[in-house]
Amino acid sequence: MAEEIMKIVPDIEEMLTNRKFHELRSMLSEYEPEDIALIFDEVDEESIPILFRILPKEMAAECFVEMDSDHQKTLIEAFSDKELTAVISDLFVDDTVDIIEEMPANVVKRILLHADPQKRKEINELLHYPDDSTGSIMTTEYVELKADMTGEEVFRNIKNTGVDKETIYTCYVTDSARHLIGVITVKDILIAPDEGMTVGDLMEDQVISVGTLDDKEETARTMSKYDLMAMPVVDNENRLVGIVTYDDAMDVIESGDTEDIEIMAAITPTDKPYLKTGVFATWLKRIPWLLLLMVSATFTSKILQHFEDALTHQAAMTALIAFIPMLMDTGGNAGGQVSVTVIRGLSLGEISMRDILKIWWKEIRVAVLCGVTLSAVNFGKMMLIDHVTLYQAAVVSLTIVAVVIIAKLVGATLPIVAKRIGFDPAVMASPFITTIVDALSLLVYFNLAKLVLGAVS
Amino acid sequence: MAEEIMKIVPDIEEMLTNRKFHELRSMLSEYEPEDIALIFDEVDEESIPILFRILPKEMAAECFVEMDSDHQKTLIEAFSDKELTAVISDLFVDDTVDIIEEMPANVVKRILLHADPQKRKEINELLHYPDDSTGSIMTTEYVELKADMTGEEVFRNIKNTGVDKETIYTCYVTDSARHLIGVITVKDILIAPDEGMTVGDLMEDQVISVGTLDDKEETARTMSKYDLMAMPVVDNENRLVGIVTYDDAMDVIESGDTEDIEIMAAITPTDKPYLKTGVFATWLKRIPWLLLLMVSATFTSKILQHFEDALTHQAAMTALIAFIPMLMDTGGNAGGQVSVTVIRGLSLGEISMRDILKIWWKEIRVAVLCGVTLSAVNFGKMMLIDHVTLYQAAVVSLTIVAVVIIAKLVGATLPIVAKRIGFDPAVMASPFITTIVDALSLLVYFNLAKLVLGAVS
Repeated sequence: MAEEIMKIVPDIEEMLTNRKFHELRSMLSEYEPEDIALIFDEVDEESIPILFRILPKEMAAECFVEMDSDHQKTLIEAFSDKELTAVISDLFVDDTVDIIEEMPANVVKRILLHADPQKRKEINELLHYPDDSTGSIMTTEYVELKADMTGEEVFRNIKNTGVDKETIYTCYVTDSARHLIGVITVKDILIAPDEGMTVGDLMEDQVISVGTLDDKEETARTMSKYDLMAMPVVDNENRLVGIVTYDDAMDVIESGDTEDIEIMAAITPTDKPYLKTGVFATWLKRIPWLLLLMVSATFTSKILQHFEDALTHQAAMTALIAFIPMLMDTGGNAGGQVSVTVIRGLSLGEISMRDILKIWWKEIRVAVLCGVTLSAVNFGKMMLIDHVTLYQAAVVSLTIVAVVIIAKLVGATLPIVAKRIGFDPAVMASPFITTIVDALSLLVYFNLAKLVLGAVS
Repeated sequence: MAEEIMKIVPDIEEMLTNRKFHELRSMLSEYEPEDIALIFDEVDEESIPILFRILPKEMAAECFVEMDSDHQKTLIEAFSDKELTAVISDLFVDDTVDIIEEMPANVVKRILLHADPQKRKEINELLHYPDDSTGSIMTTEYVELKADMTGEEVFRNIKNTGVDKETIYTCYVTDSARHLIGVITVKDILIAPDEGMTVGDLMEDQVISVGTLDDKEETARTMSKYDLMAMPVVDNENRLVGIVTYDDAMDVIESGDTEDIEIMAAITPTDKPYLKTGVFATWLKRIPWLLLLMVSATFTSKILQHFEDALTHQAAMTALIAFIPMLMDTGGNAGGQVSVTVIRGLSLGEISMRDILKIWWKEIRVAVLCGVTLSAVNFGKMMLIDHVTLYQAAVVSLTIVAVVIIAKLVGATLPIVAKRIGFDPAVMASPFITTIVDALSLLVYFNLAKLVLGAVS
């Protein structure tokens, strides 16, 4: 789809130049708003307001939501007051909040000025929730029912107000004090055995709900676990204040995973797609971590300097220099495997702090198996291909076993400790594990070498 | 929730022992099927059929779907023919197929024997789709409408058949030859301005659809992009053959991300959660990659051996050994950052093959910025803290610039090349990039050292 829409960009530009607006509108109406939003990246900035005004009315707001925030800003600045009011009234509250969060203060002011008072109040409330809270992704536009309503009343209610609701299929039942007391779906009503049954008769009163301040990613994962189309959000007193819909949950899961992946690769996460991030911004996301990790490697330098005399003056030790990169990479890889597994398990809620003994016990056994396998293969390789002495091969092979066990334990422990003390466990992925394991590996390697090779020489 | 359910396990075991079945049933009915499925992990194997039979009937099938496949097998073997027929008739076709895929041949036979002929036919069809295809995650239970139906007829249709459909909210309109000609939602009908309007009047005739053999992860990402609750799946002739629902799409996205993360950390991916995977199975998922990467490090050993004489006999060169780990880690980290970014961009469809020049041009500039920053900090550190000579500091710092540029270009290119030749780009993450960049870095380092330090000594 995205590829297809790129192909029509020249046609669109030509129609804009030749003012073939009618033709352009009918062509655009065949695409989805998500695809049309991409076209705004391609045309000149002065064409943006023209192109937007050409869009079929029912598509304009949806397309606006999907656009790059720079283009949204350009458009808001170009809008007449009337246009702005119209667009805002077509937007869902949660989308308006997402847009507002990217705008400079004067644009925010103008948007709030043109929202109707009820919407303005809701926008202001949603703007106050922290970035990672469920409140920040919820919407206040849901269908709220009372237990004594009949199916017919529900459908009348939906017919009158449904066009402005994010979902009409899952409806929430509240008592007079707005406490959440049940959930009912349109399907429940449509397939009800008896038309006279009320919402109270048909509703499910065991409702899964979350709080406004609960972590948004946990809320999204819970929705995925229970296959929920929408999740009700309540305040401290179980009063319904909003809902999260499955489409927003999907976005949270996807961007949460992107964030985890970026942190695991030692990159400061961002919402912007790679190709839209500038060179300087990309540098800024990467350089602090590279610097930190580079400076941390001072430990390995110090260890190597400490053993320099032995390494350069004892012939048996000298040959060991060649295997430093292999040992370090193996440690990094072995530690990375387990740290990433634990980090993902924590993210998905499959692992928690109380599993740490189970994890250790398992990883020790896996580490011994991995270490012995690698060590055996390495021993054979060193004797047959590298033609080193038996003692040298033994030192390197024994070190491998130790390195793998150290790496697995460090890799299994640090993410859980990080989570425990309130850090993002994803930080404790390969780059940091590698830096720590490197230093430990070198200490084991050279001490073992001194012990074995010192004894035989 | 999961934590909460674990707390009631002792109570459940006690009720089972004391045969307080009625009490147990009413307690269980307050939980979600997804949570109850977890209890089956905790009780003795002989209690599993008893516990299952206690479950409220409407919950049994849903709970069965969520269970570990070992428990499903235990139950199927314990079921009477009548019980098996009842459970299968309550399952959706796509869930039945997921279960069958994990069962041994004799159990599969028994399941197929107890499915009704229509369902058996659909199961057999779905079983034939490749694992990563959209066909493998679709279901054949959807609402299919004709264009001349009225709203009332649609609702009557849903009332009669809706209970067996995975979703009733998005319905598909087909012509007499079952070609997909439109899509309509229950909301469209409920908020229709005029009750006399037909499906044909209200439906959207620009339908986004996918093919049965399209990649399932791409289908799921498309659904997320367009916020679709369900996606129609068509055959080569645009005949409707199934739908994918948002809950299955969410699962595909989550497990696709887990798979990518595992491959990026050099682990063979698996569907089983970490804590349920045995030690031997875990070893098997990790060891081939560790072996491959360890053996690949032979190149770095050879390079180091080649320069051994110079390294151990020329005093100015000897000091350089201490900085090998730092240079290698920096290269690995810098390469890992870009490779992971590119892999994720490919996964999300934000980057494609045709962007490679844009990516190179951007990464060269980012690499120069990163390289120069790191190099400057390192130069200062080496002069002030490590007390090396000006020339030694210069060699290491110049090498850093080269290493970062090499790492960024290798890291940006290999994932795209891998995708191009049909491999999973996620393989080209930090571990492989590190191994390649290590060897290149050492070559640059020692050749530069010979050039500079050889000239001055």
